[in-house]
Amino acid sequence: MKAVLKAGPVPGLELRTVPDPVPDYGEVILKVLTTSMCGTDSHIYSWDNWAQQRIKPPRILGHEMYGEIVALGKGVSSVRVGDRVAAESHVTCGKCFQCRTGNAHVCKNYTILGLDRDGSFAQFVSLPETVCWKTAPEIPPELACMQESLGNSVHTVLTEDVTGHTLLVTGCGPTGLFAIAVARTAGASTIIATDVSEYRLELARKVGADLAFNPQKMDASVVQEQTGGEGVDAALEMSGHPSAIHLCFQHVKNAGRVALFGIPSAPVPLDLANEVIFKGLRVHGITGRRLFDTWYRLAGLFRAGLDIKPIVTHTFPLEQFEKGFNLMHGGQCGKVVLVP
Amino acid sequence: MKAVLKAGPVPGLELRTVPDPVPDYGEVILKVLTTSMCGTDSHIYSWDNWAQQRIKPPRILGHEMYGEIVALGKGVSSVRVGDRVAAESHVTCGKCFQCRTGNAHVCKNYTILGLDRDGSFAQFVSLPETVCWKTAPEIPPELACMQESLGNSVHTVLTEDVTGHTLLVTGCGPTGLFAIAVARTAGASTIIATDVSEYRLELARKVGADLAFNPQKMDASVVQEQTGGEGVDAALEMSGHPSAIHLCFQHVKNAGRVALFGIPSAPVPLDLANEVIFKGLRVHGITGRRLFDTWYRLAGLFRAGLDIKPIVTHTFPLEQFEKGFNLMHGGQCGKVVLVP
Amino acid sequence: MKAVLKAGPVPGLELRTVPDPVPDYGEVILKVLTTSMCGTDSHIYSWDNWAQQRIKPPRILGHEMYGEIVALGKGVSSVRVGDRVAAESHVTCGKCFQCRTGNAHVCKNYTILGLDRDGSFAQFVSLPETVCWKTAPEIPPELACMQESLGNSVHTVLTEDVTGHTLLVTGCGPTGLFAIAVARTAGASTIIATDVSEYRLELARKVGADLAFNPQKMDASVVQEQTGGEGVDAALEMSGHPSAIHLCFQHVKNAGRVALFGIPSAPVPLDLANEVIFKGLRVHGITGRRLFDTWYRLAGLFRAGLDIKPIVTHTFPLEQFEKGFNLMHGGQCGKVVLVP
Amino acid sequence: MKAVLKAGPVPGLELRTVPDPVPDYGEVILKVLTTSMCGTDSHIYSWDNWAQQRIKPPRILGHEMYGEIVALGKGVSSVRVGDRVAAESHVTCGKCFQCRTGNAHVCKNYTILGLDRDGSFAQFVSLPETVCWKTAPEIPPELACMQESLGNSVHTVLTEDVTGHTLLVTGCGPTGLFAIAVARTAGASTIIATDVSEYRLELARKVGADLAFNPQKMDASVVQEQTGGEGVDAALEMSGHPSAIHLCFQHVKNAGRVALFGIPSAPVPLDLANEVIFKGLRVHGITGRRLFDTWYRLAGLFRAGLDIKPIVTHTFPLEQFEKGFNLMHGGQCGKVVLVP
Repeated sequence: MKAVLKAGPVPGLELRTVPDPVPDYGEVILKVLTTSMCGTDSHIYSWDNWAQQRIKPPRILGHEMYGEIVALGKGVSSVRVGDRVAAESHVTCGKCFQCRTGNAHVCKNYTILGLDRDGSFAQFVSLPETVCWKTAPEIPPELACMQESLGNSVHTVLTEDVTGHTLLVTGCGPTGLFAIAVARTAGASTIIATDVSEYRLELARKVGADLAFNPQKMDASVVQEQTGGEGVDAALEMSGHPSAIHLCFQHVKNAGRVALFGIPSAPVPLDLANEVIFKGLRVHGITGRRLFDTWYRLAGLFRAGLDIKPIVTHTFPLEQFEKGFNLMHGGQCGKVVLVP
Repeated sequence: MKAVLKAGPVPGLELRTVPDPVPDYGEVILKVLTTSMCGTDSHIYSWDNWAQQRIKPPRILGHEMYGEIVALGKGVSSVRVGDRVAAESHVTCGKCFQCRTGNAHVCKNYTILGLDRDGSFAQFVSLPETVCWKTAPEIPPELACMQESLGNSVHTVLTEDVTGHTLLVTGCGPTGLFAIAVARTAGASTIIATDVSEYRLELARKVGADLAFNPQKMDASVVQEQTGGEGVDAALEMSGHPSAIHLCFQHVKNAGRVALFGIPSAPVPLDLANEVIFKGLRVHGITGRRLFDTWYRLAGLFRAGLDIKPIVTHTFPLEQFEKGFNLMHGGQCGKVVLVP
Repeated sequence: MKAVLKAGPVPGLELRTVPDPVPDYGEVILKVLTTSMCGTDSHIYSWDNWAQQRIKPPRILGHEMYGEIVALGKGVSSVRVGDRVAAESHVTCGKCFQCRTGNAHVCKNYTILGLDRDGSFAQFVSLPETVCWKTAPEIPPELACMQESLGNSVHTVLTEDVTGHTLLVTGCGPTGLFAIAVARTAGASTIIATDVSEYRLELARKVGADLAFNPQKMDASVVQEQTGGEGVDAALEMSGHPSAIHLCFQHVKNAGRVALFGIPSAPVPLDLANEVIFKGLRVHGITGRRLFDTWYRLAGLFRAGLDIKPIVTHTFPLEQFEKGFNLMHGGQCGKVVLVP
Repeated sequence: MKAVLKAGPVPGLELRTVPDPVPDYGEVILKVLTTSMCGTDSHIYSWDNWAQQRIKPPRILGHEMYGEIVALGKGVSSVRVGDRVAAESHVTCGKCFQCRTGNAHVCKNYTILGLDRDGSFAQFVSLPETVCWKTAPEIPPELACMQESLGNSVHTVLTEDVTGHTLLVTGCGPTGLFAIAVARTAGASTIIATDVSEYRLELARKVGADLAFNPQKMDASVVQEQTGGEGVDAALEMSGHPSAIHLCFQHVKNAGRVALFGIPSAPVPLDLANEVIFKGLRVHGITGRRLFDTWYRLAGLFRAGLDIKPIVTHTFPLEQFEKGFNLMHGGQCGKVVLVP
């Protein structure tokens, strides 16, 4: 089959022909219909320090996928050939404290599709049946593949109820845009978004931000104005940038909450007294998707009218993966979908 | 001033001219612009057993109101003459355990406007400043007055997060209709409503029910069909009818929740083992509005696009209050607004 | 091996010699060191209506157990030969909505050890590895076997935080007594217990009840006296008796909670308006143990000093199981342990 | 009356004779029986930068107090002459968003006794009736006065349920010691405490720490050993020291929680990715006491057996306040009580 893989410990990826995967006990073979690109893939492409320590080539990339099950390994009982499924990318151990107490999203032993085992930038991929998520046929394939990424945002937004609440979303990359769309569907009252890219701010407005502004160009006190001087009920940090993190702590109201999803590249000095303690805040560290509550909520959000189409800006054949990486590098895109 | 009051211990109400109210310490005078009618008013009108024990005539009715503050008593600091406000109808003591721990909605000593003290079926009413709720000018007066009633539904729906969840709403009187509209705005996935009146079922569809049916005419197993055989995540009981209460317990999924708002007129035999215990349910008794979280959430819901206009079906001058009671008696109405 | 089983569809149980169990894929063989008796076993013994519909003889009883793993089936990875374990009695499917969202205790497809498959009234029993709970060696075998039953009470007590709260516990059978001991360890302030048996009330005092009384002999208004007229923060219903259920709803304070664990034998007429709705209560239906949060909490409670020894009143060799059933029938015992 | 006050903008305090206070509307006069000293008082004594900006001399210090009400101002209805009460030190506005939604502990407009208005280092003090907390006569005066400070720890410990949970408490000053005692009473399983003072570590062991160690002398990996390699369920940071803050984030388990109460004197660089986000933590900023839930819980904890006597190490007549400040400066004390 065709596959895009990291062939060796150097920058770049290669399109190669490789053997078709064979399912282990409890696994299924997915014929990949669509697979979307993630910032993590860019790190592996460029072979930065993180990637060098985490990835053992050869490795087929891709952890956001949708397809059709075409073969079953032994012991599989919850899905069938012909099922259309997306995949939860975290393969969890099921035996640690976290897995046994409803917190498998922070399993101590999880592995990730496309990082620790072969992924979906290929015609076929072998998956444990436990990560398969049956997807309603109403969801078009180019949206269905990005449920893993969208799930991160669903997890972030719905950590606490947002209905009728004011929100600040810092960072309008794909997960920030997803968060805005989810919050809009969830009945947030006022959604304020920030980014430094006008392209992304425009997308933020399209998916439902009431106000989207560049804090380098407009005074952030506008957040107070838009909330009657109260600050927001919740701030969702989707960028990882220190200035955005401080923006969240500064503009959330006393007794409010900050959800941290974006990954800073270095330690961030926080004025804990004034930014967290005296405000009586709750800070939520967010990673992955709650298994599988987030997926059920996401399915419900689609039925409730969640519209993420504006966020999918480009679709290419798998062979043209380099185009996708170029677009992501330039920041002039939402999500990019590859079709094997 | 003109006022509609229960003059003595007999059925009916009278329109009379009475002295204008004078504000006590901490009170304000509200010029009533709109006031809406509630089932409770019907009970007082018809002078049933409950009303005979609760109401001490003479009493001006009306606990759903909106108006303009025209005078301030001594010690008032949080509102001004000219403010447009609705009123929380529960006047709470501020000193009991419940009031001191964030549960003033079940204050042990509360009194109610229009029941225990004079209400808003009049040109003016005196109110403690603490119950005044400043209302955004975007909300038209004929909707602003029913925030008290709408707040009951907001409290019921948002007791737990409903975003992405499936819901059953039993009873499509005004509070049931409000609940549907709120749940729709909050991003509920599938909303199923029941009532025995086709008039009300039609209103339910207008405000957002995906399916509204009469359980006397259609098998309730349709609830299971609509939810993939799972049952609903939450059931909201807004009618007080025993059959509807059983419907809720029967069709909510294991580990789900039932919110009870409707008031049964007699004890209801519950099969606690199968209806509650083995299902691992949470049952929430709902009364009034959380003070003042529900009001803030409600203000946010309006900003999020909550539309309750279809539920206001009739508006009359205060003098024609009898028309309103007749309509309510016949069940051929949503909410009825009176204009003093 | 020796085993106590329901041989056919008639009252009583028999001690027989049966073949040793053989482990399936993912199963282990437990050498039973101790096993305790439960009210459910009595129902099966006497072969009442419920038992006739649920149990398919021949069936070895026993679902509360502790022992040593002596053999492993294929695919087992989380336990080893020589491990000392208790068993979670609910074998859950892992694939339904409830299992996938942290609520496996109300799995839609669960089976129960000793009811739906052979149990622990025997020298050996085969168990799925997933139900094995490694138990600290400090816990003596005659206590370790009753963790399943104790877990019901831990689940009931800790559904919400009880530290510093006043509690009413209705019913002082073993699960009621366990609940009192757990609540005492958890820092409940005042614990009031009720039962109609003086024998059990005495045990209740031994394990930590501040006041234990027979509501047929003493006016229940003592609950109000003991709580400064407030009523209790939480009521835990462990008996299933209608009068006890009403006691809970009557004496819990507004905005408090009632946990229902005891199983009524018939529908209970509830005055929902006054017992639940106007009080703004939360009612929790409790069944089984949260998997596996309850077990972790229980292990922590033992380390915190939880003492349940007074509740274990009798220990017999397995062969003398009839003595145990006689004691349970007469109500003159706490927990009865059998040693195979 | 006698009073200890900051007479002018210079270091130190003075004992002076000043006029007796007169109650305003809604205020009462408390005859101070006991008052305890807090680190905040030390900052004001030494007149550091924070104190210079916050305090407007002349000001009578003291915000931890217990006494008898000897006179009532107009409009007081919830307390009587002769009542023995402690005082909540935060005087809240009752009108801001936070006050109206159950979060008055982070009121936007609160003032503090002994900082923004005269306090309890005196024979008498005038208090709003709303801050009076009736205290059970069983609590001795030298403990009753420190409920305000103890309440901080109750708030920190009980932000989430700790029963059966493992805890790390960093910092064994008075609030850390109180936290240990509270957690012990609440049924925490293993409590590990850290400090750099052997005097304080010894107090920590006395009030219930299972292990108390100096992380400068013993490798903190002992926390992992004591928790079976899992880390703690919750970490309570009571010191404000950056190294202790990192200890909390490092040793809490995935999906656990960190409560921050200690006030760092400067921004703390946090590795948010590894310390918060990938661990899926909840971080709670803690300030003051939840009004008045914390006080009710505290009263319940005393009834449950909470013992804080070992933490009160010194008692002096008010005139000898300098002795108290000297002791606090040297760190060779728990709480110091003054008797006017």
